[in-house]
Amino acid sequence: MSTDKPALRVGMVGYAFMGAMHSHAWRTAPRFFDLPLHPELAVLAGRDGRAVKAAAGKMGWADTEVDWRALVDRDDVDLIDICTPGDTHAEIAIAALEAGKHVLCEKPLANSVEEAERMAAAAQAAAAKGVFAMCGFSYRRTPALALARRLVGQGRIGTIRHIRAQYLQDWLSDETAPMTWRLDRSRSGSGALGDIGAHSIDAAQYVSGLRVTGVSGLLTTFVNERPLGGTLVGLGGQGASDGGTGTVTVDDAAVFSARFDSGAIGVFEATRFALGRKNSMRLEVNGSLGSLAFDFENMNSLEFYDGTQPAETSGFSTINVTEPVHPYTGNWWPAGHGLGYEHGFTHQVVDLVQAIADGVAPSPSFDEALGVQKVLHAIERSAANDSGWQHV
Amino acid sequence: MSTDKPALRVGMVGYAFMGAMHSHAWRTAPRFFDLPLHPELAVLAGRDGRAVKAAAGKMGWADTEVDWRALVDRDDVDLIDICTPGDTHAEIAIAALEAGKHVLCEKPLANSVEEAERMAAAAQAAAAKGVFAMCGFSYRRTPALALARRLVGQGRIGTIRHIRAQYLQDWLSDETAPMTWRLDRSRSGSGALGDIGAHSIDAAQYVSGLRVTGVSGLLTTFVNERPLGGTLVGLGGQGASDGGTGTVTVDDAAVFSARFDSGAIGVFEATRFALGRKNSMRLEVNGSLGSLAFDFENMNSLEFYDGTQPAETSGFSTINVTEPVHPYTGNWWPAGHGLGYEHGFTHQVVDLVQAIADGVAPSPSFDEALGVQKVLHAIERSAANDSGWQHV
Amino acid sequence: MSTDKPALRVGMVGYAFMGAMHSHAWRTAPRFFDLPLHPELAVLAGRDGRAVKAAAGKMGWADTEVDWRALVDRDDVDLIDICTPGDTHAEIAIAALEAGKHVLCEKPLANSVEEAERMAAAAQAAAAKGVFAMCGFSYRRTPALALARRLVGQGRIGTIRHIRAQYLQDWLSDETAPMTWRLDRSRSGSGALGDIGAHSIDAAQYVSGLRVTGVSGLLTTFVNERPLGGTLVGLGGQGASDGGTGTVTVDDAAVFSARFDSGAIGVFEATRFALGRKNSMRLEVNGSLGSLAFDFENMNSLEFYDGTQPAETSGFSTINVTEPVHPYTGNWWPAGHGLGYEHGFTHQVVDLVQAIADGVAPSPSFDEALGVQKVLHAIERSAANDSGWQHV
Amino acid sequence: MSTDKPALRVGMVGYAFMGAMHSHAWRTAPRFFDLPLHPELAVLAGRDGRAVKAAAGKMGWADTEVDWRALVDRDDVDLIDICTPGDTHAEIAIAALEAGKHVLCEKPLANSVEEAERMAAAAQAAAAKGVFAMCGFSYRRTPALALARRLVGQGRIGTIRHIRAQYLQDWLSDETAPMTWRLDRSRSGSGALGDIGAHSIDAAQYVSGLRVTGVSGLLTTFVNERPLGGTLVGLGGQGASDGGTGTVTVDDAAVFSARFDSGAIGVFEATRFALGRKNSMRLEVNGSLGSLAFDFENMNSLEFYDGTQPAETSGFSTINVTEPVHPYTGNWWPAGHGLGYEHGFTHQVVDLVQAIADGVAPSPSFDEALGVQKVLHAIERSAANDSGWQHV
Repeated sequence: MSTDKPALRVGMVGYAFMGAMHSHAWRTAPRFFDLPLHPELAVLAGRDGRAVKAAAGKMGWADTEVDWRALVDRDDVDLIDICTPGDTHAEIAIAALEAGKHVLCEKPLANSVEEAERMAAAAQAAAAKGVFAMCGFSYRRTPALALARRLVGQGRIGTIRHIRAQYLQDWLSDETAPMTWRLDRSRSGSGALGDIGAHSIDAAQYVSGLRVTGVSGLLTTFVNERPLGGTLVGLGGQGASDGGTGTVTVDDAAVFSARFDSGAIGVFEATRFALGRKNSMRLEVNGSLGSLAFDFENMNSLEFYDGTQPAETSGFSTINVTEPVHPYTGNWWPAGHGLGYEHGFTHQVVDLVQAIADGVAPSPSFDEALGVQKVLHAIERSAANDSGWQHV
Repeated sequence: MSTDKPALRVGMVGYAFMGAMHSHAWRTAPRFFDLPLHPELAVLAGRDGRAVKAAAGKMGWADTEVDWRALVDRDDVDLIDICTPGDTHAEIAIAALEAGKHVLCEKPLANSVEEAERMAAAAQAAAAKGVFAMCGFSYRRTPALALARRLVGQGRIGTIRHIRAQYLQDWLSDETAPMTWRLDRSRSGSGALGDIGAHSIDAAQYVSGLRVTGVSGLLTTFVNERPLGGTLVGLGGQGASDGGTGTVTVDDAAVFSARFDSGAIGVFEATRFALGRKNSMRLEVNGSLGSLAFDFENMNSLEFYDGTQPAETSGFSTINVTEPVHPYTGNWWPAGHGLGYEHGFTHQVVDLVQAIADGVAPSPSFDEALGVQKVLHAIERSAANDSGWQHV
Repeated sequence: MSTDKPALRVGMVGYAFMGAMHSHAWRTAPRFFDLPLHPELAVLAGRDGRAVKAAAGKMGWADTEVDWRALVDRDDVDLIDICTPGDTHAEIAIAALEAGKHVLCEKPLANSVEEAERMAAAAQAAAAKGVFAMCGFSYRRTPALALARRLVGQGRIGTIRHIRAQYLQDWLSDETAPMTWRLDRSRSGSGALGDIGAHSIDAAQYVSGLRVTGVSGLLTTFVNERPLGGTLVGLGGQGASDGGTGTVTVDDAAVFSARFDSGAIGVFEATRFALGRKNSMRLEVNGSLGSLAFDFENMNSLEFYDGTQPAETSGFSTINVTEPVHPYTGNWWPAGHGLGYEHGFTHQVVDLVQAIADGVAPSPSFDEALGVQKVLHAIERSAANDSGWQHV
Repeated sequence: MSTDKPALRVGMVGYAFMGAMHSHAWRTAPRFFDLPLHPELAVLAGRDGRAVKAAAGKMGWADTEVDWRALVDRDDVDLIDICTPGDTHAEIAIAALEAGKHVLCEKPLANSVEEAERMAAAAQAAAAKGVFAMCGFSYRRTPALALARRLVGQGRIGTIRHIRAQYLQDWLSDETAPMTWRLDRSRSGSGALGDIGAHSIDAAQYVSGLRVTGVSGLLTTFVNERPLGGTLVGLGGQGASDGGTGTVTVDDAAVFSARFDSGAIGVFEATRFALGRKNSMRLEVNGSLGSLAFDFENMNSLEFYDGTQPAETSGFSTINVTEPVHPYTGNWWPAGHGLGYEHGFTHQVVDLVQAIADGVAPSPSFDEALGVQKVLHAIERSAANDSGWQHV
């Protein structure tokens, strides 16, 4: 792409599902948005030299490294994009920030509150030097959820009373689905709770503008042993086992109730056992003036109930969130021509590049992501204590 | 109606919303179903003699009483149908059963576990003499929910992992909606929890065939004072106040998580503050082989996901539950011609009359309703104890 | 029902599906609506004396006749309700009107324009003497469609450009479904066109307030021979054949385009071969200010798009048409507690009784129904002439 | 992108909405699919040198031309992608094919049958030399519609009886929306009929495998004069006028009925005046064994009714068409993570590149597109002749 804009040279660690997604976002963002800096897909890092080279060719990265430390040390990289499992986030992110690189880190921020706190401290120290960090809660950039937040901000919902959030998947419903790193606590930190429940918590707080102050939680594991050696399909699907089983050490499902700082209450559920629900990330907000409902399986729509309309014609309106007036959508196709899952990641890159160019901290910051981590931790504490209430 | 069938002479106490509904059911059931006994709308009881006479004329009752005790004492009444607020259920039901009358009692069975236990004991004693009691959890007789239970019974859902139930109404969202007996703990026993949450608990147990063994609950009241003197519209709607306010002494909303005897987990929510949701009684069940989803706002449909179908064509099927093969519907209209809210009550009468004629105990029995009452009580205990787990 | 209101003594001819429905309506209307006259289910007429007596007992009629002429001659009958196949409508209705009886006649009004014209003339003559006639296009009294008309009348839709109407059933999809009178042109007049297409035409004109001025039509018959002797289920379903086949002499499906007097255009489809659609009577109206969409399979909902709302929040609103402000619904249950197919018939009786008491002509009049008949006839002419345009 | 695959050097004419879309497809296809040839975005052609250079930089094209003839003459281009208005298609496509370049031409193929016939002849001549042409009916590559065709091919639908297709947009509902080239017959050939109705015809034939043999049509123009000088938004939206009006010389809406070669019948509607419908491209197919329904506003879903299931559980299933077994989707994200409008164009490029590499003619061929053109022409003839039947 010919351009005279200053470059933002990106180095990325990891190139699985999330790496492919982030690569697409970096490539695509400047084609549809007028960015102040031009992202360059400079270096891709991964431990297997041969595989990382192949991935770089496929995804469009100019160079490769086999050690993320070497990537962090390079002078010709401005930003480190971390797409690895959660147990590596803290070490890479802190090193990158200390090396003066901006950081985009996938969620959940870390596998423990302690790690997240160190990352947030590193981000604050870096911000003082104009180096910024962002956590990849990409659902915020789904146009319908960004519109939801806007409507709350406009006062269209009034005083919020209820938030109900469900993140329903089903890829573990089959008891013969194979073991993956996502089911190993030492790698992933937690199961459905941290992987998808974290999205629900962030989305609930983002859309409502409220903060969770206390929780009561219940975690459960339905299938304790799974076959080893399966080939992953998508998020973990079925595959042939080559013998033996591995022990699932994370939660298969999490439910929790919450109080928010305003007095609103919430009820949350995250599971990989909701047979038939593929990626049903649902959020509903009920206030004194209006209500909102969203389901990612219809990601281009937002349901809005305007309680100030007369009863004769009031009802939930299905807003097709593809109009030029809606968040992000004006840069894409005409109204009614829907977007897909990946667009949230492209929008994330757009906002991050803009923030860096403007010298302002992007959001969600590591502090915000630490806040989510604390909620996750409180849920785990509650679950371990007979669901007793835990302040966050 | 000319008939040579033996009569079942019904006496009813109460003639508000539920009384009008039950009257319709008693009048209509023999027109569409071949009942072994012929229900006669014999006597309507209410404290205001003039009003009860007017109601009897409107609703089709042959005679009236101003004292329910006089009704219970009459020799020409075979069954007492109790449509009064919950604080009167125990006294009337026990007296009626002791007087040898069958009893149909609206839900919730009582305002306390202690009352419910006495009622269940009276029902057991009466059953030994061929006198039967039933509690009016009418949603069980919605064809879609009866079909849901049938599919679970057929093994189509497999091992159940998740139950999520929401009962969402919005008639208290408006802070100026007037005070009613339903918001006075001394009359109603509890708020959203007992009024609508009880339906969700019964429906969850009925459809799944499982029993709740423990809960963690959270109750909240959003609006503590409401204007007095309003004229009720429907369930309590808006009306002009003639001065002063009354204190709301019940929960506006209840959320709770549950474990079932099989290891399944559940998450429940009952509220009158879900703006835009009018009578959204939702139930979703996820199992190892299939899933079910229902929303009373589309009461003629049941969503069914058959996980045994190949992935290429699997999806939630919207079953239009109006075919002759579906529960109850063959006695009504051709397929696709939907039923309404009241049909569940007509079906309830049909099953009750059949059970009495057969000399078998109808369901839900007072024992089953006592079980629901114990769950409600455990939720209240948990809510009063920082959401700590309570065994049922 | 004890009452001091003047009686309206009803005699009904026919007691199949529609007869059961009308009986329910006559019985139920006075229980929920404050009628100026009290309907009495006086006499039921049918050719088979034994069967008509059984039906009368089941449905609540006080007396029976085996000859509709005898019914028409009785002095103790004020209104004749005609629930027979279309080939008998003209003779019965004209005789009844001439005998000074009010008439409620099921749709389609007649099997030919000529019959319909004679009926309309008889109705006009009778009206001059205070005797009234109404045709049973009951869908008009579905609350959601009555609300649709109200919104058009309020100008909420603006200038109407498009009407699209589909009436989709599937009970003939199975080629082995048996022959019925509905497939015999000499009895039914036409097939899908007159049976269900007539409803769509009436609903389109009723909701829009416009009149069809010209049409182009296409009729087709997919299955020409069907087994004889089947037992009908519902509208005609499957049954065991006892040998031989009958020839289908009506259309299985009809499609037609239309122009309305305002310049709006319409596209219609009526079929009994839309596999999976049970009673999907859909109507969509697009205007310059708003749009409406309805599907009888979700009969308690109306979709309304308010084009005057800002683009940011505009979308089709799903109005749950069960509020007290909505047509008819305030007399039934609280908001969100849906109605069923039969309520339209009860509302029809309510409006008819009110009109008779007020001495004003009820709607739809025989003239209006004649208008529908003329549209049906123009479609048949067009279909017989290579779909060439036919003025109505 | 580093690759050792042979290059396919692409030259594109036009860079408005469709040009941006095609550029994205060319850039993205090799990142997610394993293509046998590597597409290079070699040259972009447009009349305004400055604008085309800016567009090339933004969209990723290496070089530019200001004359499409110069582009066609270049030796370093293998394929010409035509994204200009319909009046230029024939000239460019024929020249390109004669110059030995493969051609991808946007739909509708041409503005007249005569042009389309010449193009089809040129394509046949070129094919003999291994040079291929494809018409851009991109909706075929929407996974849900590709799945629909697959199910028809598997016999899951049985004998098709009904096809109903609607393409509903609303961007002209506002009478003050400005004049655009799309409303000028000399540029666009026709209005809603050719622009969006053509998609419906192609999709109907593609999914069903049937061919339209005759039609009856009705065209109408609701707004005859529109303000000049507006700035287009998306497909033509609102803009400020700088004086005067232009005459709309195309249809605003088209409705037509059709017969297919199998005896099935169809009803079609295409309009830009369906207020509230943004891009509602709907297709429903009813057969003897199953039915299918699709709406592009929920493009990741296909509704499938399997009539071979028992009545108890049969219903329309909402297939979330994002599973690895579904067409195209396995190359993207995990199940449930939906795709957007642009993916159909990427898939189109994938299939085109594969066909060229394999030396087989891609589909839809110019012959197929000529077939659509003939249907369009027959509709126009019918509309001009009182909707009389026209054979195709």
